[in-house]
Amino acid sequence: MNTRIDQFAHWLNEQSIDTAILTSTENVFYFSKFYSDPHERLLAIVLFPNAEPFLVCPQMEVETAKQAGFEQTIIGYSDTEDPWDKIKKEINNRTNTVHKIAIEKSHMNVERFETLLKAFPSAKFIQAEEKLNSLRMIKDADELQKLRRACELADFAIEVGVNEIKEGVTELSVVAAIEYELKKKGIEQMSFATTVLTGPKAASPHGSPDLTKIKKGDFVLFDLGVIYEGYCSDITRTIAFGDIDKENILVYETVRKAQEAAVLASKPGITCSELDLTARRVIAEAGYGEYFTHRLGHGLGISVHEYPSVTETNELVLLEGMVYTIEPGIYIPGKVGVRIEDSVAVTKNGVEVLTKYPKALQFV
Amino acid sequence: MNTRIDQFAHWLNEQSIDTAILTSTENVFYFSKFYSDPHERLLAIVLFPNAEPFLVCPQMEVETAKQAGFEQTIIGYSDTEDPWDKIKKEINNRTNTVHKIAIEKSHMNVERFETLLKAFPSAKFIQAEEKLNSLRMIKDADELQKLRRACELADFAIEVGVNEIKEGVTELSVVAAIEYELKKKGIEQMSFATTVLTGPKAASPHGSPDLTKIKKGDFVLFDLGVIYEGYCSDITRTIAFGDIDKENILVYETVRKAQEAAVLASKPGITCSELDLTARRVIAEAGYGEYFTHRLGHGLGISVHEYPSVTETNELVLLEGMVYTIEPGIYIPGKVGVRIEDSVAVTKNGVEVLTKYPKALQFV
Repeated sequence: MNTRIDQFAHWLNEQSIDTAILTSTENVFYFSKFYSDPHERLLAIVLFPNAEPFLVCPQMEVETAKQAGFEQTIIGYSDTEDPWDKIKKEINNRTNTVHKIAIEKSHMNVERFETLLKAFPSAKFIQAEEKLNSLRMIKDADELQKLRRACELADFAIEVGVNEIKEGVTELSVVAAIEYELKKKGIEQMSFATTVLTGPKAASPHGSPDLTKIKKGDFVLFDLGVIYEGYCSDITRTIAFGDIDKENILVYETVRKAQEAAVLASKPGITCSELDLTARRVIAEAGYGEYFTHRLGHGLGISVHEYPSVTETNELVLLEGMVYTIEPGIYIPGKVGVRIEDSVAVTKNGVEVLTKYPKALQFV
Repeated sequence: MNTRIDQFAHWLNEQSIDTAILTSTENVFYFSKFYSDPHERLLAIVLFPNAEPFLVCPQMEVETAKQAGFEQTIIGYSDTEDPWDKIKKEINNRTNTVHKIAIEKSHMNVERFETLLKAFPSAKFIQAEEKLNSLRMIKDADELQKLRRACELADFAIEVGVNEIKEGVTELSVVAAIEYELKKKGIEQMSFATTVLTGPKAASPHGSPDLTKIKKGDFVLFDLGVIYEGYCSDITRTIAFGDIDKENILVYETVRKAQEAAVLASKPGITCSELDLTARRVIAEAGYGEYFTHRLGHGLGISVHEYPSVTETNELVLLEGMVYTIEPGIYIPGKVGVRIEDSVAVTKNGVEVLTKYPKALQFV
């Protein structure tokens, strides 16, 4: 906990930044343990190179923030108060100069930015994301435990979904059954809209589940994840229903080999680019190169998509503690779509595969 | 459709604004019929006082946007192209001067704003929201039809939930059952996280459903809505399970009277403030004034919270075609919480109540 704040404070010092005002639910949670989506109301953690941070939230949330474990000052404000007056005062209590302010430029909106410009008219605004992304990229033991549990629940969700596959059942009713069983286990939120796609629909990278009926001879693709204590899982499995065309089985086996090759290649020292190409080469050599139309994977943690991005062109070197997805796919428009995805965590010598549902082609 | 674009173009003309670049999913949908959440990728509709609008979206979405019914130019871009180059070129094709640009300041982030500032260094940026809010506030016949259907489905959801009430059932499993039945009907998304709260938990304005068990003698509060063809419904009902304390029944009846008084008072010409006070007075006169801690309601449409805000201080006059919620509540901390909410549409002489689940206290 404090390591996170200390590491960030160290960066502020290095960059001669006087204060950082962070306003996204994810980064407030990362530094304060307090998870809250205040909608249009302001939520912020304000950090300093050499002073104690403080949290700003609606008055009615102050108690919850304390209970969540934030031990420093919490500034509450009512709907009739201007939180910026309070923020300015607290900042002035902690630092004499406010020349450089770090903000999340990819999160803060223009309206709020104009308010900040008025409050600190001579300040220069620095993008905080680069440091935030690199900090959040390396997970600590506690984060890994939560991710493990989130992935166990994702495995369970696939199991529920596979058991629902029957002739004539709709995609959306399978989604419904999956989320029903997870809610009964106390899971309030999925990482993203649960995807169940069948037959040629799985070949569209942007399809969404509807009343299309599952029928024999089709693949059923599941892509889903859950949020467990603030951490997201992500898994994809493609299951065969009835007899599957030989060509489609070849597509499946190609994706599986590509996925497993990338799992095996994952270890500290390899670059994201090398990893992406490891899977991409398997698919290209089988003649399906043009049908693998997206990156190999993405980082995973408090957000379902975070750093690093595992692409052909990212030369970032993998380090112990990084968590990301490995999810190659082959999509032949109008015909077939197969994707297999695991969430993995980089260890000292390789990776721990966090999602464990089997990958050998399963026939239902 | 075109009326919307024409009305907005008229405002741009009046304000001498050269172009409007709108980037929120909701406003792009409002003007283009194309509903898409492109995550970090750019989606925009660009409008002009005296020229044809154009739509900007990822290349892979161009076909879907056409199918959705947008008939003017659609500019697609791939992940390796800079959409802003294309936007600038298209704007320059349509207007010679770009001195004033309208944007959604409460939606656009600073990162994107800085890109815009570079592309149009001498432009002044105007907040587009005021006009957008007042346009979207008045619903046309087609929008009303979608809202009616969204509210019918919300009524059905309450019915499903009420049928699930049994001793020992958890809040989350009731949520699960509700969403299960809606998904089977083809509903992909709820307007917001479905809320089922029981006993004293309903007294917290920020409680969320968990594994708390429903037990006899408690109220069960349902607050939910569905998205139907892009339009949101919103309903709250509070149901009695077993024998309820007399005092709590009095609380219920007070809320019901307040809610019904506000429904009756709703008509063109009355202000939001008068409407809020109509309900607030009923609750205050019964001695519960301090426990009605929020506004009476909010506008409803493509967003679940939109204009107008029905508060004590909003002097906006109701007009035919406005759709909003009427949702008074009494929350006695640690004891009891009751809220009753309808979605209503202002007609020529009064309102049409869109949510129809009965409001007389129901005992299960």
